[in-house]
Amino acid sequence: MRQASALLEFDTPGQGFTDITAQVARWLASLGFTEGLLTLLCRHTSASLLIQENAAPEVRDDLAAWLARLAPEDARYAHDDEGPDDMPAHLRATLTGVSLQIPVIGGRMALGTWQGIYLAEHRHMPHHRQIAAHVIGE
Amino acid sequence: MRQASALLEFDTPGQGFTDITAQVARWLASLGFTEGLLTLLCRHTSASLLIQENAAPEVRDDLAAWLARLAPEDARYAHDDEGPDDMPAHLRATLTGVSLQIPVIGGRMALGTWQGIYLAEHRHMPHHRQIAAHVIGE
Amino acid sequence: MRQASALLEFDTPGQGFTDITAQVARWLASLGFTEGLLTLLCRHTSASLLIQENAAPEVRDDLAAWLARLAPEDARYAHDDEGPDDMPAHLRATLTGVSLQIPVIGGRMALGTWQGIYLAEHRHMPHHRQIAAHVIGE
Repeated sequence: MRQASALLEFDTPGQGFTDITAQVARWLASLGFTEGLLTLLCRHTSASLLIQENAAPEVRDDLAAWLARLAPEDARYAHDDEGPDDMPAHLRATLTGVSLQIPVIGGRMALGTWQGIYLAEHRHMPHHRQIAAHVIGE
Repeated sequence: MRQASALLEFDTPGQGFTDITAQVARWLASLGFTEGLLTLLCRHTSASLLIQENAAPEVRDDLAAWLARLAPEDARYAHDDEGPDDMPAHLRATLTGVSLQIPVIGGRMALGTWQGIYLAEHRHMPHHRQIAAHVIGE
Repeated sequence: MRQASALLEFDTPGQGFTDITAQVARWLASLGFTEGLLTLLCRHTSASLLIQENAAPEVRDDLAAWLARLAPEDARYAHDDEGPDDMPAHLRATLTGVSLQIPVIGGRMALGTWQGIYLAEHRHMPHHRQIAAHVIGE
C-alpha cells in the first residue's frame, strides 16, 4: 500500500464551471495506481467541487442559474465588504461542497459514463485556485 | 493494511429514497475489516447519496417535498430534452451530493444510532443504479 | 502505512457554528502522521459539518440566515413531533452534509488559509455531539 499527494493548480476564467476531469486523470495515471481512493479538496471558500453531467452544456447553464436563484447577489448580506458576489460565493460553495472522493478501480477513477469533475468558480473575476489531491492504494 | 472495491447494484422504484444501509453493511461485513474507511460513490448525475434519519418516514416525505420546492419541475430549464424531471434531478443530486465516507470502527460503520444511508432517486421512472464502493483498512 | 480512529466529543451552545479546527488539528498532531487522509463524520441528523471562512464572523451570520431562509421553521412539515426546529434541522444538515475529507500534507491538514472546520448545530437547544474521526497514512 502506498500514497501520493499534490497541490493541483487551476486558473478559472471567472464565474462558471471548469471541467478538471482530464487533468485529474492525468495526475492519477502518472502515479500508476491500480486500485485505491482519490480525494480532492478545494482550498478556497468561494470556489467548490462537484461531479455533474459532462455532456450537455445546458446542464451547467441551468445549474448556474439555479445557484444564482438560491443564493442571489442582490440579497442583503452582513458580509459585503468584498463585493456583492462574495457572500453568495460562500453560500454556493457551501451548497456544492469542497471535497470529493472517488474510488479508483482498474487503474481509473470509477466515475459513471456521464460524470465529470468540475471546479466551480463562484466569483466574477478570474482566480487562481488550488486543489489538494491525495490518493492511497496500490 | 488492505483494500477492497466493488460495484454495488440497486434498482430504484422511481423518485424517492431507498435505504441501502443493510446491503452496504452486508458487503462490508463479508470483507472482515475491523478498522478502516468506507467510501461510496453514486455513478449517476440524477441520483445521489445521503445520510439521514432512519426512523420516522415523514422525514423522507418532508425531504422530498423540500427538494421539489428548491428545484421544481415546473421551472424553465435550458436542458429539457430528457423530460421535465431531468434537470431538477441534476440539481437535487448536486444539492445532496454523490459521495459519502464513513469510518469503520470495531468492525462496523461508525454511523450514529439514527443514521441510515439512502440512495436518492430523482427521476420519476424506476432506474438501475450503480454505486462504486471502496474500503481500506485492516 | 497505519491508521487511527476516535470518537471526538463536542458540546454545542445551540443553533450556530462551532469552530472545531483546533481540536481536530490537536488530535491529528497527537498521532504524528506526515502524509495521509483525514475523514470526519458527524454522527447526527440535525447537526452537520462544513468547511467555510474562518475570518469574518459575518459570514457565519449570513450563512445562518440563508439556511433559515432555504429551510424555514415556519413551513408546514409532516414530521413535527420533535418541535418546529427539528425538520428544518434535518434539511439544513442534508444541505451542508455530514462527512468531510481533508488530505494531510507535511504533517498538517491541507486546508486553505481562510478555511476552518465547523460543526453546525441546527437545533435551538445545546447538544452533545459526536464526530467519528479517522486518519490513514504514514
